[in-house]
Amino acid sequence: MTTPAPFITAKTDLERYIAIYRNELVDNILPFWLKNSPDKVNGGFFTCLDREGKVFDTDKFMWLQGRQVWCFSLMYQHVAPNQAWINMALSGADFMQKYGRDDFGNWYFSLTAEGKPLVQPYNIFSDCFATMAFAALDRIQPDPVWQKIAIDTFENILNRRDNWKGVYNKTYPGTRPLRNFSLPMILCNLALELEHVLGKERVEAFIPELIKEVMEVFYKPELGQVLENVQEDGTFSDSFEGRLLNPGHAIEAMWFIMDLGKRMQDQVLVEQAKEIMLNTLEFAWDEEYGGIYYFLDVKGYPPQQLEWDQKLWWVHVEALVALAKAFAFTGDPRCAAWFHKVHKYTWINFRDEEFGEWYGYLNRQGEVLLPLKGGKWKGCFHIPRALLQVSNTLAEMAKV
Amino acid sequence: MTTPAPFITAKTDLERYIAIYRNELVDNILPFWLKNSPDKVNGGFFTCLDREGKVFDTDKFMWLQGRQVWCFSLMYQHVAPNQAWINMALSGADFMQKYGRDDFGNWYFSLTAEGKPLVQPYNIFSDCFATMAFAALDRIQPDPVWQKIAIDTFENILNRRDNWKGVYNKTYPGTRPLRNFSLPMILCNLALELEHVLGKERVEAFIPELIKEVMEVFYKPELGQVLENVQEDGTFSDSFEGRLLNPGHAIEAMWFIMDLGKRMQDQVLVEQAKEIMLNTLEFAWDEEYGGIYYFLDVKGYPPQQLEWDQKLWWVHVEALVALAKAFAFTGDPRCAAWFHKVHKYTWINFRDEEFGEWYGYLNRQGEVLLPLKGGKWKGCFHIPRALLQVSNTLAEMAKV
Repeated sequence: MTTPAPFITAKTDLERYIAIYRNELVDNILPFWLKNSPDKVNGGFFTCLDREGKVFDTDKFMWLQGRQVWCFSLMYQHVAPNQAWINMALSGADFMQKYGRDDFGNWYFSLTAEGKPLVQPYNIFSDCFATMAFAALDRIQPDPVWQKIAIDTFENILNRRDNWKGVYNKTYPGTRPLRNFSLPMILCNLALELEHVLGKERVEAFIPELIKEVMEVFYKPELGQVLENVQEDGTFSDSFEGRLLNPGHAIEAMWFIMDLGKRMQDQVLVEQAKEIMLNTLEFAWDEEYGGIYYFLDVKGYPPQQLEWDQKLWWVHVEALVALAKAFAFTGDPRCAAWFHKVHKYTWINFRDEEFGEWYGYLNRQGEVLLPLKGGKWKGCFHIPRALLQVSNTLAEMAKV
Repeated sequence: MTTPAPFITAKTDLERYIAIYRNELVDNILPFWLKNSPDKVNGGFFTCLDREGKVFDTDKFMWLQGRQVWCFSLMYQHVAPNQAWINMALSGADFMQKYGRDDFGNWYFSLTAEGKPLVQPYNIFSDCFATMAFAALDRIQPDPVWQKIAIDTFENILNRRDNWKGVYNKTYPGTRPLRNFSLPMILCNLALELEHVLGKERVEAFIPELIKEVMEVFYKPELGQVLENVQEDGTFSDSFEGRLLNPGHAIEAMWFIMDLGKRMQDQVLVEQAKEIMLNTLEFAWDEEYGGIYYFLDVKGYPPQQLEWDQKLWWVHVEALVALAKAFAFTGDPRCAAWFHKVHKYTWINFRDEEFGEWYGYLNRQGEVLLPLKGGKWKGCFHIPRALLQVSNTLAEMAKV
């Protein structure tokens, strides 16, 4: 992988980037998961894959099962109607449908390879990725059973929304009630993902509330940052949780908002999201070693997270998506310059030229911290989604 | 701090080490906490202290309140009857007694500065350090109220022992029941700490079971390592949890076991514990950058813990205690050589010559990862305890 010339001076640059991102998706990432992750005995996917793709642990994490079903469904729909891809999605969906839920329709956090529950449904993001998975599969192969799973799960997410940890919530009620950014953020994306099952009207009734939550509650203009947690009334909480910044989250949320802004033809919103995204990048970029920090404290105090200075794959590829969209939607040359910078860092440091796929976890210096290609949290999701989003976004630009 | 000559060739070397450890305790560590941590308004301690000792967060973590009460009580008893020290212990105990427990006598995980509960009693180690605290205070200033708190808390720990996470346990029952090493390990230490309130007979009835648990269940001779989690029947679980090694835990447990062995005049047990400790050190020592890894996978797979390669203060000072004891109790020259090596790494990398106290968190390379002197997990405990244990252990040797 040679470093590309500064981005983007001509249509030929665009074409070159489109090819790089598209080829990486089709020739490297998807074949890696297709080859290494299927559980041919039980169905579903192994996601704990070592550097070479060998399975080193067989537990199944429902986040990652759902994300992989979603991913292969999406690729079938948007890249090519490849039978092997839909078979992957179907195998995962079948496993999820059989074993994934408790009696109340909540999705377990993890299962054994055979589908026995290991960890209770304490984490609502299992449900978020399950609903995305079944909705995506239903788009390419409509089936009332999948549609029902998608809708039931979505309604359950909304029902659990205000106390989604349920009995596993360790916060003492009343002393310092906080609202967390993750769920409103992901709902911005879910709303669009589920449009064909929820209906345009419901989605459009839903969107303004979510945008307001992200842009007016969690984004604090006086701090110039998106917070991970705020007090119940939306104000800043001077506590570990309240001071926490997760730049990757903020950047990812901004491309969800830009998508919503574009859909609503609200260019002011798109510009706002772009500015917040650029601010976040500038604040969270490691000037010494390059890359984007994982966690920061908005007041500059030591964060609780010992992994705060590590460089994670998803943070960087989400930044690439956000920058490509921001450039395509606004033409701001700062976005092109940042795209080039983040592209260079990401492709040089995360990509494994020898054994395929990308590393997930680098230390602050950019060296490999864990040689795995997949694990409990890294699966077949952020990288393929980003490669597709970037190539499609640039392809749209190239058409103009 | 100049690097000392290779340890320990003569009695003068011993004397020099004794002075170094004792002076660091009395002139650096204890004054730092005495000056910076008291909450003069509400009682109790602030533990989130930045590099200079300034309070950057006022939440109170019950682990650390209990540990600090214990620490100042112990110092009063074993170092000097310093009124300021007992006042510290009393202030913490008063705060804990007033605000620390729920209606069932379980200790909260954290409180606000004023004592309002923030995080529920999901973590039994809050209780472990509370019982240690009140027992230690009762040793220096006997009081039936404190004695009762110590005993009630201890009984409650035993009652909760088999499912101490209670309603916060996210493990699905039955699929993969695991036993965790932390509680048996800490009970080895607690039993001795509480002897004057529990009585010699009860403690001695208790000890063999704990030793068996640590040395025959969690220590696996075929792996040469102490595991953090085993299956219910004591066998190895080939899962993330089952493969997990926490070398600091294993090393700390081995000095608890050596103390028990010495008390029981069981030299075979002392020798066994020494060998396990040396094995652990050899396995977990970072040959490239020095220092002891925080987490490892016994099969060499990538651990889940992103902080796995970091160098933590408590791991290193516990190793110093274990090595000093092992050398004192067995005379094995490998222990002296290792003591010298770990001493050098620890004092050069963790100690802050400029602002006092020691850093807690270094990256793999030995650079400061977080400049804090105290936080949510680092308080006034491991360092002062280790300085006292090492100096006392060597002082005993010097007498011979």
